[in-house]
Order: sequence, then C-alpha cells, then structure tokens
Amino acid sequence: MPKRKSSSKTSLKAGKSSKKSCRKRGKVKVAINGYGTIGKRVADAVSLQKDMCVVGVTKTKPDFEARMAVKKGYKLYAAIPERAELFERAGIEIEGTIDDLLEKVDIVVDCSPGKIGAENKPKYEKAGVKAIFQGGEKAGVAEVSFNALACYDKALGKDYVRVVSCNTTGLTRVLYLIKENFGIEKVRATMIRRVVDPKEDKKGLVNGIMPNPITLPSHHGPDVQTVLDVDITTVAFKVPTTLMHVHSLNIVPKEVPKVDDIVDVLEKEPRILTFEESDGFTSTAKIIEWAREVRMRYDIFENCVWRDSVAVVDGEIYLTQAIHQEAIVVPENIDAIRAMFELKSREESMELTNKSLGIGEIRA
Amino acid sequence: MPKRKSSSKTSLKAGKSSKKSCRKRGKVKVAINGYGTIGKRVADAVSLQKDMCVVGVTKTKPDFEARMAVKKGYKLYAAIPERAELFERAGIEIEGTIDDLLEKVDIVVDCSPGKIGAENKPKYEKAGVKAIFQGGEKAGVAEVSFNALACYDKALGKDYVRVVSCNTTGLTRVLYLIKENFGIEKVRATMIRRVVDPKEDKKGLVNGIMPNPITLPSHHGPDVQTVLDVDITTVAFKVPTTLMHVHSLNIVPKEVPKVDDIVDVLEKEPRILTFEESDGFTSTAKIIEWAREVRMRYDIFENCVWRDSVAVVDGEIYLTQAIHQEAIVVPENIDAIRAMFELKSREESMELTNKSLGIGEIRA
Amino acid sequence: MPKRKSSSKTSLKAGKSSKKSCRKRGKVKVAINGYGTIGKRVADAVSLQKDMCVVGVTKTKPDFEARMAVKKGYKLYAAIPERAELFERAGIEIEGTIDDLLEKVDIVVDCSPGKIGAENKPKYEKAGVKAIFQGGEKAGVAEVSFNALACYDKALGKDYVRVVSCNTTGLTRVLYLIKENFGIEKVRATMIRRVVDPKEDKKGLVNGIMPNPITLPSHHGPDVQTVLDVDITTVAFKVPTTLMHVHSLNIVPKEVPKVDDIVDVLEKEPRILTFEESDGFTSTAKIIEWAREVRMRYDIFENCVWRDSVAVVDGEIYLTQAIHQEAIVVPENIDAIRAMFELKSREESMELTNKSLGIGEIRA
Amino acid sequence: MPKRKSSSKTSLKAGKSSKKSCRKRGKVKVAINGYGTIGKRVADAVSLQKDMCVVGVTKTKPDFEARMAVKKGYKLYAAIPERAELFERAGIEIEGTIDDLLEKVDIVVDCSPGKIGAENKPKYEKAGVKAIFQGGEKAGVAEVSFNALACYDKALGKDYVRVVSCNTTGLTRVLYLIKENFGIEKVRATMIRRVVDPKEDKKGLVNGIMPNPITLPSHHGPDVQTVLDVDITTVAFKVPTTLMHVHSLNIVPKEVPKVDDIVDVLEKEPRILTFEESDGFTSTAKIIEWAREVRMRYDIFENCVWRDSVAVVDGEIYLTQAIHQEAIVVPENIDAIRAMFELKSREESMELTNKSLGIGEIRA
Repeated sequence: MPKRKSSSKTSLKAGKSSKKSCRKRGKVKVAINGYGTIGKRVADAVSLQKDMCVVGVTKTKPDFEARMAVKKGYKLYAAIPERAELFERAGIEIEGTIDDLLEKVDIVVDCSPGKIGAENKPKYEKAGVKAIFQGGEKAGVAEVSFNALACYDKALGKDYVRVVSCNTTGLTRVLYLIKENFGIEKVRATMIRRVVDPKEDKKGLVNGIMPNPITLPSHHGPDVQTVLDVDITTVAFKVPTTLMHVHSLNIVPKEVPKVDDIVDVLEKEPRILTFEESDGFTSTAKIIEWAREVRMRYDIFENCVWRDSVAVVDGEIYLTQAIHQEAIVVPENIDAIRAMFELKSREESMELTNKSLGIGEIRA
Repeated sequence: MPKRKSSSKTSLKAGKSSKKSCRKRGKVKVAINGYGTIGKRVADAVSLQKDMCVVGVTKTKPDFEARMAVKKGYKLYAAIPERAELFERAGIEIEGTIDDLLEKVDIVVDCSPGKIGAENKPKYEKAGVKAIFQGGEKAGVAEVSFNALACYDKALGKDYVRVVSCNTTGLTRVLYLIKENFGIEKVRATMIRRVVDPKEDKKGLVNGIMPNPITLPSHHGPDVQTVLDVDITTVAFKVPTTLMHVHSLNIVPKEVPKVDDIVDVLEKEPRILTFEESDGFTSTAKIIEWAREVRMRYDIFENCVWRDSVAVVDGEIYLTQAIHQEAIVVPENIDAIRAMFELKSREESMELTNKSLGIGEIRA
Repeated sequence: MPKRKSSSKTSLKAGKSSKKSCRKRGKVKVAINGYGTIGKRVADAVSLQKDMCVVGVTKTKPDFEARMAVKKGYKLYAAIPERAELFERAGIEIEGTIDDLLEKVDIVVDCSPGKIGAENKPKYEKAGVKAIFQGGEKAGVAEVSFNALACYDKALGKDYVRVVSCNTTGLTRVLYLIKENFGIEKVRATMIRRVVDPKEDKKGLVNGIMPNPITLPSHHGPDVQTVLDVDITTVAFKVPTTLMHVHSLNIVPKEVPKVDDIVDVLEKEPRILTFEESDGFTSTAKIIEWAREVRMRYDIFENCVWRDSVAVVDGEIYLTQAIHQEAIVVPENIDAIRAMFELKSREESMELTNKSLGIGEIRA
Repeated sequence: MPKRKSSSKTSLKAGKSSKKSCRKRGKVKVAINGYGTIGKRVADAVSLQKDMCVVGVTKTKPDFEARMAVKKGYKLYAAIPERAELFERAGIEIEGTIDDLLEKVDIVVDCSPGKIGAENKPKYEKAGVKAIFQGGEKAGVAEVSFNALACYDKALGKDYVRVVSCNTTGLTRVLYLIKENFGIEKVRATMIRRVVDPKEDKKGLVNGIMPNPITLPSHHGPDVQTVLDVDITTVAFKVPTTLMHVHSLNIVPKEVPKVDDIVDVLEKEPRILTFEESDGFTSTAKIIEWAREVRMRYDIFENCVWRDSVAVVDGEIYLTQAIHQEAIVVPENIDAIRAMFELKSREESMELTNKSLGIGEIRA
C-alpha cells in the first residue's frame, strides 16, 4: 500500500531521527550552510547515511523552507547572524547562527548561491572545519574538484573540495564511462539548460532562447576538465523551462563501439538511467512525470539517457541525456564527505550512497 | 530519517498489498478504467482504504504509466480490447481486457478523458456495475453530481455518480463553507487555468492568454450548481503554465463577516490549506515547491487559499485560491464510493479519507 | 504594393524629418527621457504630429535601442551624464547629456522605469520644463493623472501630468464609455497580466501563476479613480506570457443595457477595437498575429474587446478585453502634451492623434 | 517621419496594386495556395517584384487571415471547393475555388501545411501549372530541392521545385559560404527549435525540452544534402518558445580560417546579418525586439549570426545563429520562381529579391 501519509510523516521526521543518530559515536558531523534547492536534498541524503549525521542547517531568511527544516527536525541556524532576529519575529525557533553551528561540526557543506561560497570560506577556515563547495564556485575555491566516478581518490583526506555543477556532473559521468571503455579523442557538447529552477518566480526567460554564454566555447568544457582528462568543447543555451537540462553529445572515441556496447556500459552504471521513446518518454516533461511516482520531490540523482538517441555515425558517438539539475549532485556530495574523511573506498562509498538513495533500484 | 528509498519501495508495492487485501471479505471491489493523471491517483487512494480495494486498472496503450501500474502491483487490463496485443508486444503483461475486469468488480471509477466516459457507460450498464464518472463528462451521464462537503448524501445508494471537475470541486468546497457560515447572495469567479497538465508535451498555449470560453459566462458556474445551490457567474482563461489553477473569487455574503472569521472557517476544514506571502508563497510555483517535500507527486488534495488574499470590501468577500488540478478530486472519488455503497456517513467517510491521505496533518 | 522596404526606410528617417520640422515655428519642442519600450513609441508618435517635434531622446546605455534612435535620426543624449563616455566607446554619437537636452525643450516625456521618474523631477523643475510621467510613478508625482477620454480637461495648462499605466488606461477607456452611457454602480475587475515585455530575457515567471499583489484589492482600482470617478475593486495576477494583458470585467450599470447597445457604444469609440472568436481570435496570440500585419512593432493603441465576451447576466455587464501593454498609452501621451499647452480641445486632439497613428482606420 | 499610418495603408493595398500590375504583359502569374504563415509573406514578396504578380490566394477557412487577404486586395479563392459556402456565410467575398484560380496562373506556390502539398500535386499537374512546394514536403515531391545561394541553377526551367525548410535554409546559407571559402570536411549541428509559431495557441510544449526526433541523427542533415554537397550530422530539439530557432554549429573546415575571415565572409552576404552581445543582443527575444522596428511583422529574411559566437577551436569552427522560421524562406521562394521561368541569373535574381525586401539595407 502506498503509505503516502506515513511516508510524508517519516520524511517530516528526517532531522528528528538524525538528531538521535548524531549522539552515536564516530559519525561525521555535518553542517549544511544554505538549506535551499541543493542544501535540503543534501541534508536528507546525509540523514540517510550511517556514518554521518546532520548537526544543523542554516537559512538566510525565515521562509517556508526554514519552517520545513524545523518540521523535519533539523536544527536551524541563521546563515547571516544579523538576521537572527527575523526568525524570532516570524515565530521560527533557531539554535543560533552559522558561527555557533560551525563549532559543533566536522564539515560544512556549503550550499549557498554561486560566489557566496568563496565569501564564506574564511569563516570555515577560522572555525577549522572541512568544507565542500558547490559547482557555482570557481575551481580555485577548493583543493580539488570532485566527481565520484571520475576522481574520488583525489579528494581523499582533503579539507576543501568542490563538487562540480549539475551540468558538469552529468557530462562527467557519461564521459568517464565512455573514456574508460572506448577511449575519447574529442567531445563536443551542446547544452540546453532549464533557465531557472521550478521554485523561482521572479527571474527567467519567458519566451526566447538565450546563448549563455554567447562567446564560445562555454565554461562547462574547462569545468569538466577539472575532474576528467578529456578534450572537450562545449556550447550552452538557456531555454524557458524549469524541469531539466538536456545535453546533446558528440564523442569521438578512440575505439569505435557498437551502439549496444555503449548502451551496455551506460546501463551497468547505477548512476545512469536509460529511457525509451516507445515507453512514452518523449520529453523531459515525461521523465519528470515518471519520477514523480518513484521519488519524493521527483529527485532524479541519475543521468537520464535516451536509449534511442545513442548512435554511431562515421565513427562518432551521438547521445542525448537529461539532467535533473536539483538532484544530480546530491550523491556526489555524500561521496565527497566520505572521501575527505577517508571513510570508504570509491566503490564502497558509491554503493552505500546508491543504496541509501534508491539509486540502482529503479528502472524506467 | 527520510526513508525515501523505502518510501518509494512501499509506493511501488501499492498494488501488491492491495491484491492481498482484496481477498478479505466485505471490501468494495474497484476497477480503475484509465490509469492516467486521475486514475493513478485514485488507484493509490483506494489502496489506502480498509473498506475498498483495487482489483485492476486499465490503460489504452503500453507506455511507462502502464509499466508503473504493473510495478506497483496493480493488475493491468487493456482498456481497448483490440489493443491487447500491443501490450504483449511491448513486453507488458496484462490480465485481460476491460470486459474481463468489469466481471470482477463492484464499481468502476471511469478516469478516461472527457466525453469518453459517456461512451463507456453502456459497457458498465451491461456488466451491471456501479460507475463513477469524472467532471469532464456532462452532468447527465450520472444520476447525481458529487462533492463530499456539499452533497454527500445525494449519492447514497446511487449507481451512477459524477465527481465534478477540479475547478468545480475547488470552487464548491470554499463556497459551501462560506454559504453554511455566512450565507451567499451571489458569487463572481474568474478562473485562471493551467493550460495543460505537466505530463503533456504536445498540446498547450506557449505564449499568450486564452479566454476559454470567450462567450460568457463559462460553464463552471452551472457546474457548481449541480452540487451546490448558489447564484454564481464564472469567467475562465487558460494561461501557459502546468502547475495549478488559480481562482479569483468575489462573494456577496448574506451576513458580512470579518476577515478573521472567514479565515477561521476555512482553516477548520481539513480539505483547505492556507498559505502566507510572508512565508515566501508568492506564486503557485512556491506552493508546489512546498508540496514536493510533503507528498509523493506533490499531490495537493486540498484547496490552497492565500490567507493574505482574504478581504472584505464594501460587504463583499474577495479571496484567491490555487487548485492542484491533478489531485484535488481524489478524495472526492473515495468518498463517492462510500456514499454509493452506503458504507459510512459523510463525516465518517471524509475523516477516513482525510486520514488515509494525510489531509489535515500538514500545514504550510 | 506593400512598400516594406520603403516603409522601413521611412521609419528609419523618423527623426531626420522631425529635425527639420523642429525648425518650424510654433511647434512644442519635446524631449523623450528614456528611449525604451514606451519612449521609442512616444518619440515616433510625436514625430507624426504637426504641432510638436522631438528635439532629442536619451538612453542610459549604448545598446541596440540607442543605435536605432540614431539611425532613425533622433538626436541622442546620455540619460546619465557620467555614462556619456560609454556611448563614445561604443561608437555611438551623442549630442550631450540630459541636462543639455532639457535646455532646448518645452516639455520632457519621462519614460524611465517606475520610480525613476520621481527621482528625475527635480531636474525638470530646475530646467523649468513641463513634464509628463508614466503610470509607474505614484500619482503624487504630478498635478493630475491623465486619460484622454476621461479627463483631458484636467490637464489643461498643467506643468506636471502623469499618464496612467497601461492597465489603468485600458480599464478607464471602457469604464468611461459605460459610465457615460449607462451609469456605473460598481466595477469588479480581474487582471491577468503578461509578466514581462517581449524584450525582457532575464526576469519573469517561467511556469506558474502569481497573485500580484496577493493582498487584495490591488492598486489598479485606486489608480483608475485618479482619472475616473467610479466605484471599482481590482484583483491582479501575473502569468508567463509577454504579449498582452487580459482584463475580465464585471460592471454593475445604473441602467441595464442590451448587449448590442454595449457593443455599439464600444465600437463607436476609435480607441477600442472589437474581435470575434468566429474570425479565429481565440487568444492574445491571434490578436498579435493580426496586428503584425497592420502596424509596425504590432503596436495596438486600442483596447481589444472580444465582442463575444460582452454579456449581461442578472443586470450586470461582463466583458473581456486584451491590452497591448507596450502601445496603449502612446496616444494618451500625445494628447497630454496638447492639453498641457492648451493647443487643442479634447475632441480635436484625440482626432489628430488618432488620425496620425491610424486609430479608427483599421478594424479586425 | 515614421509614416506608420500610411505604411499600414500601403500595406493594406498590396493586392490592389498587384491586380493592376497583373494586367501588364510578361509578368509571371502566381497563385498562392494557402495564405497562412508562409503564404501571406510570399504573396507580399511576389507583389513587390516587377516580373511577377499575385493573381490570387487561397484559404481553407474564413478567418481573420482570409479577411486580411481581401483587405490587402488579394483575390481570394477557397482552397477546399466544398467549403466555398463557409466564406459566403462569413461575409467574405471569394472569386471561386482553387480550381478556378489554377486556370489563370503560370505557377502555384503551395504553402499548405506539411504533407498536404504532395496531395495537391495531381491538381497542379492536371491544371498544367508549375508548382513550388515548401520544406514540409518530402524531397521526392519535386524535381529538385532549392536554395538560392547553393543551387539556383538546378531549378532553371524546372516545373516542380521544393524550397527547403526554414532550418535547412538557415543551415545551407551559412554552410555554402563556409564551404566556398574554406572548404568543409564535416558539419555537426544541434538545432534548438521554437516549438510552434507565434500564432499557434492550441498545440505546443509548455514546460520541458523535447528531443525531436529522439532517434539520431535528425532528418535535417539529409535535407541539407538535397541542396548542398556536405558531410553533415544533425540533432534537433523543441523548446517552449515561439520566436526563432537557434542553431549551434560545429564545422570542420578544409582550410582553417581566422575568426575575422569567417565574419568577413558572412557579413559580405546580404542574406546574413550579424549581431553583437555588447549591443544588448543577449537572446532571440532581443533580436526580435530589434526587428520589430525595421520590418512589418518583424520579418527577418536573413540568418542572424551572433558575431561573438564565431570561434575557431582546435581547427574547428563554432558559431551560433538564430533563424526567423516564419520569414527566412520567403526570398528563396521568389528566386525559385525566377529560376523556374529562367527570368534571371542567380546573381540578378538574388539582387532583385534582396532589394525589394530590404535585404542588405539594414544592419543591427
């Protein structure tokens, strides 16, 4: 029976349980700085692991996401100390400020908007905690950039790690697999990006297509190169949709595979899902419709590759994938924590993360 | 801990459990004809009740929704007998056709697209099963039109009942409460409708606003009058969004209430949720963002009223509400089944339905 | 023959001709401060009049609209003196700054974004020039608010006049006519607003509906009352489209007219166009498609009323109209100039303006 | 002065003038079968030429486009004889049916929706008139496929010619120039297509991205090869916008040029316009905003290339262009007529067409 009621209940107790679990010894104590689109997903994912726990989360303002954090049992802290009072006035209990929180944790996952992570770094250094930054920051903010499949070991024992962006994560997973199996001479990728996340209602392109950037190539290619050694040139556009990015890939392999070999390689990796047009998956809208049935928040942590799109033309591979920008980096953040504390090997960590998030259990 | 993994697992066993539960005596045996937007939600909701069970569901074509039905454990039947072969060819096991299914049930919930329900009716009559139709059908298809709050008793013992549409259900709930408490002289409603559901990707207005219908007033007013005796005139538009409808209401009460009295009345009813702008609920996009955290498929079975929008001007009430078109009629379908088999009183049924769906447990 | 080539040529010489015409005696010398969405349309409209001329226009930055101004022959000035250099660097010739321009004119039409007009006012006062502000400013910025039909005479001889916004102009025109002919007890209006103009590509709601404001009633009602004495309550929403606003009106007349009488009254007024669904006008998209054939920039200076939407129900009038937000206030700005310099009577001015802009010559 | 009034007048007399001009000897007499998005533009373009004239146009139904045709002076015929009566009932005068029209002309430009052109062909054969088909038809419908730059001469004296689609025309123009100047080894193109034209209000993707087709490569590559001998692989997507298509091109040249050389080659061709981000051209929305000032219906007959996007990376050319899908094939239709009647050479025809349409006179 679909225990929607209880499932929502359970979900609303995420933090409560984790509070308890933080009392257990040996767990890595995690702070989430910025309980927004990425932060709330990472918080829930951390709560699902046995070797780490969420000590607290921060918000800059007392909105419904802040209330939700509290309802879920997360201890809430003001991300901007001067704004602590706003939470009180809104009737939302906070435990202190980000500074108080940093004293209690081993690591902070910075989930603030792009560029703010770098501004926060001195605070983390001062508090002597490790920190993970997201892909909106420049690579220089951390010692290494991170993708679990492509370069887990680089983050072993590191203090500052940057999980690359949703687009870069999506590209890297597929390219790593193709490279490992067939070698790569060259990659050309065109990215068609959702202009804003679903929760945005003030900014975004309404009717049009926006080269972003106009000057070619885009920054995504060099960003992939921070985690995978591959010759890649990228072009990117923004279009008026909120659901997922879509990547159109052209890959020149060293060894020309058959289409079935490529599909096999992709389908063996749990962090990649394949979809078929004949099942009705004609657009990102249909993939999301499917995901609404299988995961809370329709979170798709996996790359979504259209199996029908995999083609080999004149020795070059073509494929199209969709990337759920809100969710795809969540497993990588968990793996990054494990690598930074040298808790597990790449294979072990990815398996634990996958199992906890249901990755590898569902197929479209 | 957010048992996302297990919650999805549970959800994927919806039908499996219900299969068992259908063996128990005394349960109303339900067929869902049309496992689409409404059908899949009604199937899951029926599965959550103790006094009814899903015997099987139908699909017209073997797409991902058909596969999902099977994965969830629902027995699948071909809605169009001639197409049974298509399912086999797609590797999806079916149990038979709609005709086979009708032989095994007490009632069929017809969830086919508008106008098709009426075409199906002779089949139901021939099979001697009761039937519920959705709001896309004309009122004449059934003995009575139905809204749980407004006219549960009218459906007692009936064989053919029509659950009114999402817009009409949303209007009726609020108007019933206002009428019961303050009386109503006149209602004027402007409805701003999402043009298509999120899963549609072939039809829909891309850039524009469409009076629908252009000729005033719209059919929604008379439709409300099939379930509630009230003087109402409605105007409707379609706009390029997929998430929710929005209703702008002007109500002339018999007795002029204070704003707080109105809010009190609305907040006492579990099938109505209130939202505040100060919490960040500035648009339907934000309400859906919230719902993604608390319900699978972000299903909102409740009317979503902006508390800040409730106003009394010159003795007239103004209020704005958002309606999740995919989910709002689900509880009404469950209550309709109970009424038709005279299983429970209105209060009892609504309470059971509410509890099973988590209605009344969450607040924004 | 459609002299598209020559028509575009002509259009590109707008300013060149007007330069000459400014040498003629007795013309009101006009500055346009802010050559953007409204400003460029007002500039062209002024150029089409015999009793006024454009001395120069300003831009805050050297973009394609600035280049277009120069190509059309308008003398360009830097709206922000400190940024004058930017224009030079971009290779766009300017004649000076706004301060230089103000010395040469009798009146400035302030077309800057909302609130900036008020900031500019001291500059105009200091220069001793009359000024017109747009509807994005508060009513207090000017001596009177203005709508040609409803209150031309109030602006006679005034120094500071505010042309009310696109929505208010659209409401006022229709309400004035209904009031004059049948009297008005009460108006209730729901406005469905395009979220941004077509040229915006950075801000705007992508998927959703936004009550704007959430707190009822909206400011549009009181804004109408600055130009027309009428009891009106308004509600407003933003939706993800760029083309036109749509107004859903409920009007309680003093004397109940027949539908045909209402249509007659509306069709007699050149600043109102009527459209029929049977001609294919099913949405704002179709109205704009039509307008693309008859006016440069598909400018519709007229209210667009769906004739089929005009209804009388229980003694109340219902009607739906679409408003081209970019163009509708243009004729009112021209008339306001004439009123402020007492050049013509209301009837004379409106006729001249109408003739010059092609208002009254086209019918859908 | 911007003679908007007179320009619209002139434009409304398009057909009236052409009627006269059809009396002149030696003009090619043209019928437009299907006065819709393409048809109305081709009709106006034919009217602007001295060596051809529009004898009549057809419509399938009496909507506002039919009325507009009559207002412009075009003689209107029923595209579907059985529906002739509908026009009368709507009060729209027609001259007869398509069969009557075909008797009076030398050539018909078939502008019906995709696939209908092929159905119409027997009618044209029977009437003994030459015919031009549009790109929605399969290549086999005609003797040759046509692009003015790439293969004018192939159409010399032919009876049945197919002007390739908007996307193919846009690709071909740029590729022809690159090939002529630097040679081409290989082209990889990703096309991001507007989902429907602005006037559509019933079909279209509202929120999502649609691979179209999902199976790679898309048909656009082979379609280019019907007019240009080049090795090309294409991928295409539909996105929820109405304004323009965008093409992301990767071209491997035989001889590696400098960026400036590429830009020079493109800027020399009148049917290509270049745009710069620094002028504010950040999206298709901005290009259209510009076009609204310079052409009726904001028709852009030229490819719109972002100059900033032209790049050479590892010996491969990258560039991004936007294509106004409603207008780009219009000049090609005119040139095709000249080729089919051997009126002029390629250079002469293109120059005449360009001059008449204002191509080469405007720069962004």
